[in-house]
Amino acid sequence: MTPIAPQQLDEALNWRYATKAFDPSRTIPADVWAALERSLVLTPSSFGLQPWKFLVITDKALREQLRPASWNQSQVTDCSHHVVFLGRTEMREADVQRLIDASAATRGIPAASLDGYKNMMLKDVVHGPRGKIAAEWSARQCYIALGQFMLACAQLGVDACPMEGFEPARYDEILGLAGTGYRSVVACPVGYRAAGDKYATLKKVRFPLAEVVERR
Amino acid sequence: MTPIAPQQLDEALNWRYATKAFDPSRTIPADVWAALERSLVLTPSSFGLQPWKFLVITDKALREQLRPASWNQSQVTDCSHHVVFLGRTEMREADVQRLIDASAATRGIPAASLDGYKNMMLKDVVHGPRGKIAAEWSARQCYIALGQFMLACAQLGVDACPMEGFEPARYDEILGLAGTGYRSVVACPVGYRAAGDKYATLKKVRFPLAEVVERR
Repeated sequence: MTPIAPQQLDEALNWRYATKAFDPSRTIPADVWAALERSLVLTPSSFGLQPWKFLVITDKALREQLRPASWNQSQVTDCSHHVVFLGRTEMREADVQRLIDASAATRGIPAASLDGYKNMMLKDVVHGPRGKIAAEWSARQCYIALGQFMLACAQLGVDACPMEGFEPARYDEILGLAGTGYRSVVACPVGYRAAGDKYATLKKVRFPLAEVVERR
Repeated sequence: MTPIAPQQLDEALNWRYATKAFDPSRTIPADVWAALERSLVLTPSSFGLQPWKFLVITDKALREQLRPASWNQSQVTDCSHHVVFLGRTEMREADVQRLIDASAATRGIPAASLDGYKNMMLKDVVHGPRGKIAAEWSARQCYIALGQFMLACAQLGVDACPMEGFEPARYDEILGLAGTGYRSVVACPVGYRAAGDKYATLKKVRFPLAEVVERR
């Protein structure tokens, strides 16, 4: 693995901003989008449980439907791909078994050899403390995906707008999520900034490093 | 901004793993660590409110104290830098004002010109729906930072281990967080993998893209 230069990280992070106006005529090229989808799949999660799905919405009519449920933000209809991060509403034994089966298959080992790992997960995210707040725990995992995704987008030169400003219940209804075990957590339209988006040139506002980072 | 190649993103994401054994003799070089601190500061957050702090712990004695509160995981003491992500326990008008003041100063505009923005935030994260769950909302923002941070680390060739397996209340006590308005949310020791970490060579387990990504 060849690391990038620290300045390249700076550059991407300073280039990105929450895009208010997308250029509706531009689409993310297939190879770039494929890499971003792979990056979503590779997002780290607690225990590796991946309690999520990623809806990628390009259909214009569906996006027109979602827009009024998104505080009417134009990014939903003008972006190239509208990504909705779905989290598991609860964690059951079957969710843990799914990971155990995938691990055994991927690594060519008997599932039974993973019993310790399995029981640790069951005691925590199913029957234990995190099991009681499974929907919220899953939501937090979705935010890991969101954070990683936004940086990945910036590094590939793709603009993004993280979006909490939508009505999850209406999204769930429009997207037909009832009974699927997933719910809408957060969204992120991506594409390319419009030439006239005045937010693109505003100075980035961050609290000083000395206030935010404390060394001990 | 010069984008990286999609393959470079793949490479970093496939190189990373949740590091179980760090090489205690290796320290992240100052310039690399400085870039990672800057990346933490530049993490996107809802409304730009940055409801967080990042504790960077290098002191050996303090890490010895934290280890038993971290399911006794050796990463806490063997890593180069132990990062604890703190989230705001509540959001008050002063938190919003702090951002307004920083925005006005950074952009050289009167704070009063941001009243619309300010009221929108107050109505949501202070007095509105998100205000009621401010601690959890802040925690989610910390997970954006975690997700971005893990990718940034991988790209700079730094190993990381995301860590929910610790006792937040004991961390808060050891770190003296009572009364500060912040609480421990998630942790992430970083450094360099030990040569003998058998987890480094295990095949990565992910559900198939076709199960996780749904296109509409």
